[in-house]
Amino acid sequence: MRISQLAAEADVPVATVKYYLREKLLHDGVLTSPTQAQYDDSHVQRLRLVRALLGPGGLSVAATRDLLHHIDHPPPSAHQLLGVAHQALQRPARAEVDLAPVHTLLERWNWAVDDEDRDTQGALAAALAGLRAAGFDVPADALDGYARAMREVAETEIASVPTDSAESAVRYVVLGTVLIEPLLLALRRLAQQDASHRRFAARPTPPSAATE
Amino acid sequence: MRISQLAAEADVPVATVKYYLREKLLHDGVLTSPTQAQYDDSHVQRLRLVRALLGPGGLSVAATRDLLHHIDHPPPSAHQLLGVAHQALQRPARAEVDLAPVHTLLERWNWAVDDEDRDTQGALAAALAGLRAAGFDVPADALDGYARAMREVAETEIASVPTDSAESAVRYVVLGTVLIEPLLLALRRLAQQDASHRRFAARPTPPSAATE
Repeated sequence: MRISQLAAEADVPVATVKYYLREKLLHDGVLTSPTQAQYDDSHVQRLRLVRALLGPGGLSVAATRDLLHHIDHPPPSAHQLLGVAHQALQRPARAEVDLAPVHTLLERWNWAVDDEDRDTQGALAAALAGLRAAGFDVPADALDGYARAMREVAETEIASVPTDSAESAVRYVVLGTVLIEPLLLALRRLAQQDASHRRFAARPTPPSAATE
Repeated sequence: MRISQLAAEADVPVATVKYYLREKLLHDGVLTSPTQAQYDDSHVQRLRLVRALLGPGGLSVAATRDLLHHIDHPPPSAHQLLGVAHQALQRPARAEVDLAPVHTLLERWNWAVDDEDRDTQGALAAALAGLRAAGFDVPADALDGYARAMREVAETEIASVPTDSAESAVRYVVLGTVLIEPLLLALRRLAQQDASHRRFAARPTPPSAATE
């Protein structure tokens, strides 16, 4: 198909397709003349993926290019996938942050994490430090509760990683990491509204307020 | 205390304190001369809070100013707190997104959410649309699992909202929303590493690889 049809197929303006081509987010088509190229279904798929990563995924162009590279060149072992995905998605490391509180927690929960991935541990340490600095104390049992909930989530996710091909596994892990995060945060907020309703707004609205 | 002592107390450069004062993220001190002001413990507390929101919280200066306003001027009812926090923290709304799939889910889970808060529902709709566009199918039971885990989290959180004063309640809800999000995401990634370890790397390392 021509570029105009590709754009229509993926519901993206032609100018955007050209921008993705220039930014190497989309592989070139097959040239049929010096100014014309043919595209196929692989371009439609990739275009949809790029849109999802840049849009709901909230990634930068550089991070997206990086992730696509990993999807196209999967690492040799399934366990390495996760490290690759996490590192590609990590925000730039902050100034040195004390990892000791994180190690204490990981030991308490008996979690075996990637020792060399200091970024993800650093993200947890920074979140804890931020809470403490803001004077927002998370009691130990609340923290354990968060850890339990996230462990349940992760358990199901890792159990579902397909192992039929490295390409499908890395695709699953990368997209699952980046695209499920906004899903989880939106679900938490909606669940909070539901819980708040039940705790604070369960009483029927008085007639005077209802007619406001 | 003088500005230099305030800065030292909160471990922030003096120039940064001045910047926060200019940006109205920090309330003015009491002038003791045309060029000197006195600060107190309320400034130290606020300074720590601002750092946490801008740093680990990942908020912009404008969003931080907005949040502080809500902390200082809490809404009249406890249930409104959450709406205020969620709206202040929401990323700008995307182009119109179809909320029908979200309504179907909320009905299936029997969640009572804020009808007028279309932004949070829009965030969930956008996350679902992104996953679908990327060809990443989340089966219904996996989605139910995510919802269950987030409901557990939210349940505990809302049960812990203090009701002694509106100020402490709004502080709890706002900070809990913004500062717990990076905590949850970091926990999920570490839990994934742990689960991946158990699924893919549980076998003892062969001696040849161990000496690499």
